[in-house]
Amino acid sequence: MTTVLGSLEQVLLMAPGPSPVAPNVLKAMGIPTLGHMDPDCFKLMDALQEQLRAVCKTRNAVTFPISGTGSAGMEACFVNLVEPGDAVLIVTNGVFCSRMVEVASRLGAAVDTVECPWGTPIRPEAVEAQLRRKHYKLLAVVHAETSTGVNNPVAALGALVKGSDTLFLVDSVAGLGGVDVRVDEWGIDAFYSGSQKCLSTPPGLAPASFSDAAMDAMAKRRTKVPNWYLDVALIRNYWEGSPRVYHHTAPINMYYGLHQALDNLLTEGLEASFARHQAMHQRLVEGLGALGFSLYVKEGAAPQVNLFVPPAGVDANALRLRLRQEHKIEVAGGLGALAGKVVRVGVMGEGARPEPIDRLLAAVKACL
Amino acid sequence: MTTVLGSLEQVLLMAPGPSPVAPNVLKAMGIPTLGHMDPDCFKLMDALQEQLRAVCKTRNAVTFPISGTGSAGMEACFVNLVEPGDAVLIVTNGVFCSRMVEVASRLGAAVDTVECPWGTPIRPEAVEAQLRRKHYKLLAVVHAETSTGVNNPVAALGALVKGSDTLFLVDSVAGLGGVDVRVDEWGIDAFYSGSQKCLSTPPGLAPASFSDAAMDAMAKRRTKVPNWYLDVALIRNYWEGSPRVYHHTAPINMYYGLHQALDNLLTEGLEASFARHQAMHQRLVEGLGALGFSLYVKEGAAPQVNLFVPPAGVDANALRLRLRQEHKIEVAGGLGALAGKVVRVGVMGEGARPEPIDRLLAAVKACL
Repeated sequence: MTTVLGSLEQVLLMAPGPSPVAPNVLKAMGIPTLGHMDPDCFKLMDALQEQLRAVCKTRNAVTFPISGTGSAGMEACFVNLVEPGDAVLIVTNGVFCSRMVEVASRLGAAVDTVECPWGTPIRPEAVEAQLRRKHYKLLAVVHAETSTGVNNPVAALGALVKGSDTLFLVDSVAGLGGVDVRVDEWGIDAFYSGSQKCLSTPPGLAPASFSDAAMDAMAKRRTKVPNWYLDVALIRNYWEGSPRVYHHTAPINMYYGLHQALDNLLTEGLEASFARHQAMHQRLVEGLGALGFSLYVKEGAAPQVNLFVPPAGVDANALRLRLRQEHKIEVAGGLGALAGKVVRVGVMGEGARPEPIDRLLAAVKACL
Repeated sequence: MTTVLGSLEQVLLMAPGPSPVAPNVLKAMGIPTLGHMDPDCFKLMDALQEQLRAVCKTRNAVTFPISGTGSAGMEACFVNLVEPGDAVLIVTNGVFCSRMVEVASRLGAAVDTVECPWGTPIRPEAVEAQLRRKHYKLLAVVHAETSTGVNNPVAALGALVKGSDTLFLVDSVAGLGGVDVRVDEWGIDAFYSGSQKCLSTPPGLAPASFSDAAMDAMAKRRTKVPNWYLDVALIRNYWEGSPRVYHHTAPINMYYGLHQALDNLLTEGLEASFARHQAMHQRLVEGLGALGFSLYVKEGAAPQVNLFVPPAGVDANALRLRLRQEHKIEVAGGLGALAGKVVRVGVMGEGARPEPIDRLLAAVKACL
């Protein structure tokens, strides 16, 4: 037999996720597997939790990676906090908030939305008005919309429900590590991210964190969580229990990678990483601007997710295919109404450095 | 900062999962990440599907790894096939069939069980009698019970519902690759396994397969699957669609590892692997027998999961701890009623070879 592994091309990942993975993280992925009840596995898990608390700026005890991709993080947050009939308010201005609506609706939640235009940040006033009209168990928002390139004002939205009994759920799959996230200060009760964006780890884990209020809401459920695999109260006993209680077999090689990647990030420093993402975003916008590309988002542009409208006569999809075929660089196409109209470029984690940005700029120039 | 990675001990994994991982699989885990919509990623996915069909002995189109551990495979099978009120029959003789009862019940299924004694194989007659008494949408069974060391007669159980409209769901988390599994011949409609047992891949993926009848049952649901992340009909569009439709970001480094491990297995040949597992089971039973250990299971003993009752005066838990501390070898303790009374030893994948077996035997001898 032969595998296809030797024939796989090495591609510079400049789509908004997955992002390039540092060599020491790839190396960590191949450390010999340990058992899920091994004392050294627990040591690693303790270290991971401390790192995640630092990166999320939280003191939440319940902070660990969910064993699945970012979407499993979304599923975990909703399925643990929502019961049939619960009123949930979701602010929508992109693909991933629409996914939230789908996930919550399938769980029987009574979902209302505040619809905001794609490509502009959410206006807190519109959300505030809806919160005055009706009481909600949960307010949910996507921090960094990978589909539109907007960072939403999470702090201002959190302030609207602070001190109330409405829980605040935030998706920062595409934000954590690249832009500031303050779980505690912003009053976030349920939080999830993904390993493969600004954290520059291979896809497969969803770092998550839950406040005491969220854990209290889970404890007060009328019904069991209809998802045993993602039942946070059970998983917590594995991460924190004394003794640890086996739940499911930990995907430990993914933990090795995430642990190394978080160490890379914390060694650099969070604020330095945010500044680097901002500077590389500028470098990209200026470089592509000189080639006739304009940023799609005019206000609230996310440094880590960049949507560009190509100059007249340049087909976005054709450019994307040429970059992959001729230059071994991946960028992404537009989603939904933006399909065919924009290219989406990630400035994430290890991709937010001068070398990959300049390599992309040179390749785009060669394609024009 | 410093990571804990350098301080992790290298442990010989002789518990019933995770099992030792071959060096070429660990190496594959660190191949640079590719995007989830990259043509080379699709090439890898196609190869993985072909390999899994070969290992599962199935022609099922819908055959792919679920993005989670074995328990996510269990969750996926039940959540896609069960709706509230559906009658489900689960045969129980260990921990993992009890987990099935919990998973199905949380989804609102009307669960009946046929309880069989732990440590002996299921008697098909008892199941047949219950199937005559009541009509079920689904019959579910665990093939290889990791908690008791029994392989259940899946073929005989499948024959009971063949030709009827009762779907047959089988968990072979601990069997696939080490003992024979024939998804098509045995009439299995929904099947799942785990990457970290006899397939000798790090934990994190649950190979799964669904028959046409299972897909038909999903298409006829009255309600949407209350788990967007594990909705098999949606995930199928990503694995098979033309064009492929993005669902969630593929955990591609795990795919690299599984692809290499399946290649190792198929290169050796399935029947050769089964014979090797059987021979190494004998080697272990004889070796530990000479030291006074007796096999807990008298009938239907699984070659890949071995429960041993220690000789008089030897404490099972103390032995387990000494093996880990003094010899860097992991074996497992007993679960449930067997806690403290047995040691559970895996003879799985790369652990089913003379060198690890003999190293374990020498270490046990040194501990007595």
